[in-house]
Order: sequence, then C-alpha cells, then structure tokens
Amino acid sequence: MTERIFRYLREQQPETPCLVIDLDMVEHNFRRMRELLPAAHIFYAMKANPAAPILTRLAGLGSRFDTASRGEIEIAMATGVSADRISFGNTIKKERDIAWAYQQGVRLFAFDSEAELQKLARVAPGARVFCRVLVDCGGAEWPLSRKFGCSPEMAKDLLRKAKAQGLDAYGVSFHVGSQQTDLEQWDKALGQISQMFFALVEEGVDVRMVNLGGGFPAQYRAEVRGIEAYCEAVTRALVRHFGNRMPEVIIEPGRSMVGDAGVLQTEVVLISRKSANDRKRWVYLDVGKFGGLAETMDESIKYRLRTPRDGTRTGPVIVAGPTCDSADILYEKTDYRLPLSLKVGDRIDILSTGAYTTTYSSVAFNGFQPLKSVCI
Amino acid sequence: MTERIFRYLREQQPETPCLVIDLDMVEHNFRRMRELLPAAHIFYAMKANPAAPILTRLAGLGSRFDTASRGEIEIAMATGVSADRISFGNTIKKERDIAWAYQQGVRLFAFDSEAELQKLARVAPGARVFCRVLVDCGGAEWPLSRKFGCSPEMAKDLLRKAKAQGLDAYGVSFHVGSQQTDLEQWDKALGQISQMFFALVEEGVDVRMVNLGGGFPAQYRAEVRGIEAYCEAVTRALVRHFGNRMPEVIIEPGRSMVGDAGVLQTEVVLISRKSANDRKRWVYLDVGKFGGLAETMDESIKYRLRTPRDGTRTGPVIVAGPTCDSADILYEKTDYRLPLSLKVGDRIDILSTGAYTTTYSSVAFNGFQPLKSVCI
Repeated sequence: MTERIFRYLREQQPETPCLVIDLDMVEHNFRRMRELLPAAHIFYAMKANPAAPILTRLAGLGSRFDTASRGEIEIAMATGVSADRISFGNTIKKERDIAWAYQQGVRLFAFDSEAELQKLARVAPGARVFCRVLVDCGGAEWPLSRKFGCSPEMAKDLLRKAKAQGLDAYGVSFHVGSQQTDLEQWDKALGQISQMFFALVEEGVDVRMVNLGGGFPAQYRAEVRGIEAYCEAVTRALVRHFGNRMPEVIIEPGRSMVGDAGVLQTEVVLISRKSANDRKRWVYLDVGKFGGLAETMDESIKYRLRTPRDGTRTGPVIVAGPTCDSADILYEKTDYRLPLSLKVGDRIDILSTGAYTTTYSSVAFNGFQPLKSVCI
Repeated sequence: MTERIFRYLREQQPETPCLVIDLDMVEHNFRRMRELLPAAHIFYAMKANPAAPILTRLAGLGSRFDTASRGEIEIAMATGVSADRISFGNTIKKERDIAWAYQQGVRLFAFDSEAELQKLARVAPGARVFCRVLVDCGGAEWPLSRKFGCSPEMAKDLLRKAKAQGLDAYGVSFHVGSQQTDLEQWDKALGQISQMFFALVEEGVDVRMVNLGGGFPAQYRAEVRGIEAYCEAVTRALVRHFGNRMPEVIIEPGRSMVGDAGVLQTEVVLISRKSANDRKRWVYLDVGKFGGLAETMDESIKYRLRTPRDGTRTGPVIVAGPTCDSADILYEKTDYRLPLSLKVGDRIDILSTGAYTTTYSSVAFNGFQPLKSVCI
C-alpha cells in the first residue's frame, strides 16, 4: 500500500534521513475507522504527527483534534481547524494555557486531579470536562505508566465536584496503552468504566461520554490484527457494558492513523566489527534514537527494515544511530538480521514510521539536523 | 558558585523552562583543567553544549574542539575557530562529510574500523588519524556500550594499515564512560593502551598521541571527587604506564566543562495523587525527558532539585514531565522528596544541567518548544 512512497523515493532520491508520508493512506485510515465505528467522534491525536498537510487532509474529512498543548492548538487553528473541534486532552496544563484555549473557544478539556479541576473551574467556566481513569491493563508495546488518570473512586468524586463547581461533567476517558496488541483490554477497561459511569448517572451527575483514547496499532515486526478486529472488539465491549444506554463515544487515534502511512529512508554510514572474530556486525545508520527513532527506547518498538539486497543471505546485526552517544543504539538485544552483502552507502527503508518520529527528533544533538519529512 | 545564575533568575524571572549558563564558570573550569593537566591539549566536546557564547569564550582561552558531525564543525568555524583546532572525533562519518571537513582544513580524525579507515585513506590523504580502542570499564553513570572502539588487536592492525595507506597513524583514544565515578578506570585503561602503543612503536608505526576522551563528572546527587582528584589520577596513570616515554596527550571534556555551569529553571504545572490514600505525590514540571532532560533515561543521571520551600517538611514524590507520553517520567524508582508545602506555580531549579540538555530536546514533541537557554 505504500507503493506511492517507494516510487517517490526511487524517483526523487531525497537526501537522507527523510520521512515520506502518504496522505492518501492517512485518508484511507480515517475513512476506514469512520466506517467501522460510525457512532464515534474521531479526534486525531496530533502528537503522533502534527504535519500541516496531515491536519489539513483530516480536517477536510471532518476529523476533530486531540491536542496536548497550547502549541498544538495553535498549529491546528493555523490550518483552519475551528476551536469547537479541538479537545485539550492533556491532563497536565498550565492555568494560563487553559485560559488562553478557553478564550480561543476550546470547550473540551481533560483532567485527572483536584488541582487541575480547580484550574478549569477558575478559568474555563461551563466547559465540558472529562476525567481520565486509571484502568488495569497489560499487552501494550509502548510502556504504559501510571502517569495519567486516577482511581475510579477518585474520578467519581472529581466529577461530582466538577458539576458542583459549574463545569459540565461530560464523561470519562481511559487509555489501554499505545500499540496495544491484546483486544480484550478494551472489554476489561470498559467493564470498570461502566460501573462508575452508571453510579454517577444514578446520583444525577450527567456524565454522557466515554473517551476510548488511543491504542490501535501500526504494523511493526510483530503481526497485529487488522483495524476491523479492533473496531469489532471495541464495539462488542461497548454493547456488552452499556447495552441500550450507549453514551457518546470519542476515540483518539494517532499511531493507527499515520504510523503505516510513513516510510523513513536512511543511509548506511558504516558497517564494522569490533574484533576480527566478532559474530555480529554493527550497522550504523544516519538516523538513530535522537534523530526521530525515540520509540526504540528499550527496544520497545521494533520497526521493519527493508534493504535493496533483501532476499540474499543474512547475518545478525546490531543497529545503531550516527551520534557519539553510547546510548544511541536501536537494536542490540532484539534479533535483527540484514544481508551479508549490505554495503556502506546503501539506503534502508524503515517502515511504519509515520507516527511518533519527526517531533521526537532532537533539535541538533551532535550537530545533526532534525528529521525532515515530506507529505505526498 | 552559581550565585550569578540565581541572581539572574531572581531579577529576570525568565519564562520557563529556561537554562541559564554562567560563562565565567565555564572559563573557570577550563582554566582549572589546563592548570592541572598542563601538558594535555584540551578539545572541548562540543556535543555537551554547542551554544555560540560558550564556544567563543573557550576559543578565546585557546581551547580546541572535538566535533561529532559536519554540523558541529560548521558551528565551530562560524564562531571563528580555525580548522587546525578541530578534531572530527566521531568514528561514524559519511565519506562526503570527511571529504568536506578535509577541504576545510581539518586534519585530525577518529576511526575504529576498516571501512572508516578506507574512507579516510581515500578522501583525507596524509591526515592524522587515531584509533578508538575498546577498554574494559565499569563505574560510569551514563551507560557505556560497545558502540565505539575496537579490540586492541584490531586497533594495532588498523594503525599499521593506516600508515601503509599514507595516513599519519597519530595515536589511540579510549573512553572510560561519561560521568565516571571510579578514578581507577583511567589506570586500568591506560595499562591496556600502553601495551599496544609500545608494540606499535617497536614495529616502526609512529604512534605518538593518547586521547583520554571524556568522563570527568558534573555534580549530580551523588557526591563526586573534585577535578583535582581526577587530574591527579590521570597524571599518575600516565606516568605509571608511559614513564619517560610520555606521548602527546589529548583530553575531551564536555560534561565537566559545562555541566555545573548551568541551572534549568522549571515551573510546577501540577501536583496530584492517583487515589485518596496515595503515599506519593506526582509532581509534573514544564520540562521533561523530551524537553532536554533525556539523560534521565532509565533514571541514569539524577539531578539535584532546589525549591523555594527547601528546609520545610518533605514527602516522597514521582517527578514527571508535561507531555502526554507515559514514558515522560523523570524519577519514579529513585527516592526523591520535595516539600509538602510545594505549590503549583512554584519554580524549581534543576542544578548542573549545563551539559547534554539543550541539544537533546525535541523539536516540538507534543507541541512544546525546545529548551531555551541563555548564557550570562
């Protein structure tokens, strides 16, 4: 499906490293999710890739936008997205940034704590707010911590208070973890969520929205189920736990919207061994952990690599980036193999790199420029 | 010693997050090292902090510069550093970047592999080259991998070849690991180095330089010995292993030159608990792992924190950054305590943040701007 990208790379031979995004595939991914989850409002998680052409394409299709900061709201509005289609989804916000967003017309905010609720009550009166709940999850490839969300008990208390303080206690959100490979996690999470949800409704707190967060995958080395299976699992879980009292549903795809739509082309800078009888070769690329591939941290995300010499005999390699930082190694423990005929100067394609790459890249670590990207 | 910085912060109240560097302290650090190691050529490791005022100040003092890329060489030359004071110290270089540097007049290059040697022989004829050797080390706080260097046996072979191919086989380099706390490591390394060094000399390969790399520390949470102790240990090891056949010596300080000269001021964005009976508070700052504090990866570098409420009762905290990334946590396993009276909006000073911060920061992850810095 990324044939357009490979043709572009063959014809243009851009200076490496370079990320190429296929906007048609982004559009395809959006349309597919809307078809499969017709009742959900899709808020694209901008942090995955905030390139203006992506936002423009998605905005034209009717997408809404999940933003993490004033900076992201500014970018979204600069591409013509109206404030009523923006969610300020970060639970960690400066009060002056909330006030600013409210002045722009943003009326949808996340929170997960008493202090954040007080900020919202002070500077965003009447806004719709949703509380992020900590659910008990496993199975995600990108580490999920307890950084976001609060216990269901605390969430109930906070939503009651939100109502009491003149906010619109709109609903709850959760996140099963990015690149989630276990489809049962949504059922597990929604089971926990629905209990507190209905308890609040019975008390007269008018919660009426469930935000499913993100978590749908891109295609890295491990086989993952298709988007159809994910949407089916989510729909089944919603029906099971909410029945005919279905809430409004929000979903915040990032990785699954743009991940597979990008290919990062890199050049082999050096191939070496550390001693004459070293079993593994070291393959050094012109992009690494600090040039956009931050998700290789602890070898979490395992990208697929394509070389011009695929199909010939391979041998084990350690893959590393170009900086003088000893931590700039992409894969050392994970078993990666590359053709024995691979040469310095060869170009390698790193697949499914459309999400969480460009914006992670450092400003100039070791004097290397940030990752360039082009949307076609 | 950073009183100038604290005065600046009090008087200017810059928008946070903001790194302030005291150039006088950088100068002090340089002068002190020159005094303590009068025979060594100091090559400042630019990657630690390439801010132009730092380079200008150090260049004025006679410093030379260790660079990692064409980009860093350009920055150094733009601040008036002449090419003969520049070392292209990365062992992973594109051949066209070597050729470019050679055209600019750079004549000192690192390498650690056959393929890199061939590049140098082709496009940097006659240049002085040094081979990085893998030495067996422990004790560094920032992880040291096998990414750089080759076995002593291979290094000998490569230096012989360098000579045969018309390069000036100038010497060897090694690195004991950044933020090295065990002073004995230099003795251990130099013992290994001197053997291969004299073996080459006896064969008629005119190696005559030993590059000690970096590794001298900055002052993080754990107490470290002063620069005097480090220089003394290095000098003792050199005398012990090289006696009256002392080679030219190069040292490449980065962290020890600028680390303690910087203070990063940040604002507390949120303080919360995940449930009513949570023992630990979460303290969210407006700077995190992707905004310059990348060295908190795996909680490796443990910065000292200063708050306006120090001296009052403290409690345990988890310290996290402002992004929506669940991995953006600075300290969770490490025991950090902050005043119970700490408030949202308080400013916290993160000490010894002059090295490996600004350039690590991401271009715009989550829409947050890269770390700003000012040199005073």
